[in-house]
Amino acid sequence: MPSQQRAIETRQRLLDAALARIVRQGYEATSVAEVCDEAGLSKGAFYHHFSSKQALFVALLERWLEGIRRQRDAIDAETQAVPEALRRMAVLLRQVFSDAQGQLPLVLDFWSQARRDPAVWERTVSPLREFRVYFSDLLARGAAQGSLRPIDPEAGAQVLVSLAVGLVLQALLDPSGADWGAQAEGAVLALVRILERAPRGANTP
Amino acid sequence: MPSQQRAIETRQRLLDAALARIVRQGYEATSVAEVCDEAGLSKGAFYHHFSSKQALFVALLERWLEGIRRQRDAIDAETQAVPEALRRMAVLLRQVFSDAQGQLPLVLDFWSQARRDPAVWERTVSPLREFRVYFSDLLARGAAQGSLRPIDPEAGAQVLVSLAVGLVLQALLDPSGADWGAQAEGAVLALVRILERAPRGANTP
Repeated sequence: MPSQQRAIETRQRLLDAALARIVRQGYEATSVAEVCDEAGLSKGAFYHHFSSKQALFVALLERWLEGIRRQRDAIDAETQAVPEALRRMAVLLRQVFSDAQGQLPLVLDFWSQARRDPAVWERTVSPLREFRVYFSDLLARGAAQGSLRPIDPEAGAQVLVSLAVGLVLQALLDPSGADWGAQAEGAVLALVRILERAPRGANTP
Repeated sequence: MPSQQRAIETRQRLLDAALARIVRQGYEATSVAEVCDEAGLSKGAFYHHFSSKQALFVALLERWLEGIRRQRDAIDAETQAVPEALRRMAVLLRQVFSDAQGQLPLVLDFWSQARRDPAVWERTVSPLREFRVYFSDLLARGAAQGSLRPIDPEAGAQVLVSLAVGLVLQALLDPSGADWGAQAEGAVLALVRILERAPRGANTP
């Protein structure tokens, strides 16, 4: 167990070191040797955990997405009414933007790599599909429970996912042009406001 | 007049040649000499119209945006009711995607250049701002005429612009993953459906 714990810590250390380096100098310009140097670890340790620089890059993306998914699922589990769940996810989205401050250029690296490399491509595109399915189910559930106006769930999910992607891109292009986290939260809240259906018999308990 | 007409035609020919080349081989890999070659024109003709390759690149973006703006404004001028105008713009958006087929990688070139070059950056970011202002006004007008539910116009405009940007990016990353023009149209139509307010006294003429 302690050795397994140590392995997890080493992997995290490599990921943190890679993130720091890539944010500073970009993905292309960062070598495995530099990541090892930054982490204070050997190349042996590196290749024990990652088959290549690209595998580490993909692992960075997955760690980030995994954190978002975990928080999203916690909200979902704790919240019965879909409009309330969406409002809480709007706040989470704001948090995602503020946590990613300074790391957004990495997203452009992913997208550029994805166009060149099928493995990165698959890992970049599949979360978008997965989030579309997730929100499609959530919107359908909201319509079924009567808390949301009926909306084509797939079109609605496309709105939510594209909105998030479009905001990330704008935040990347124009970082000081707006508080993008606040824009994201405001946009989702405005959507929820027009989607939400006042509960029938709002006066009954 | 004929010489002015010829100048306009020469400029269009250079833009068409540049577009063809850049779509084929990317912005970075395309030289002014190749554009001249493709257009069957001299470097003298090129530099009469554009101060640099970058100036031509920006002119390509502006020609494209100008076409979209013109169609958008035509819809606006012909259509009184805002929900109907938005529905017609949804169809226009689909058309924009289908016209841009094969040219979308150019958008990624713009975004990458924009991060390096302040002149390209300004021309890339300012249309996004301009479209946000446009849609904010349109949504406010819809609320004022009673055809749309009241929505924070700026948040609603951010939804529309981010949605379009996010769809462009997804179309770029995953060109065969969906009919992105149809996704764009469907997403905007779904939004209009929940935004629209049935006219009061729908039975009166």
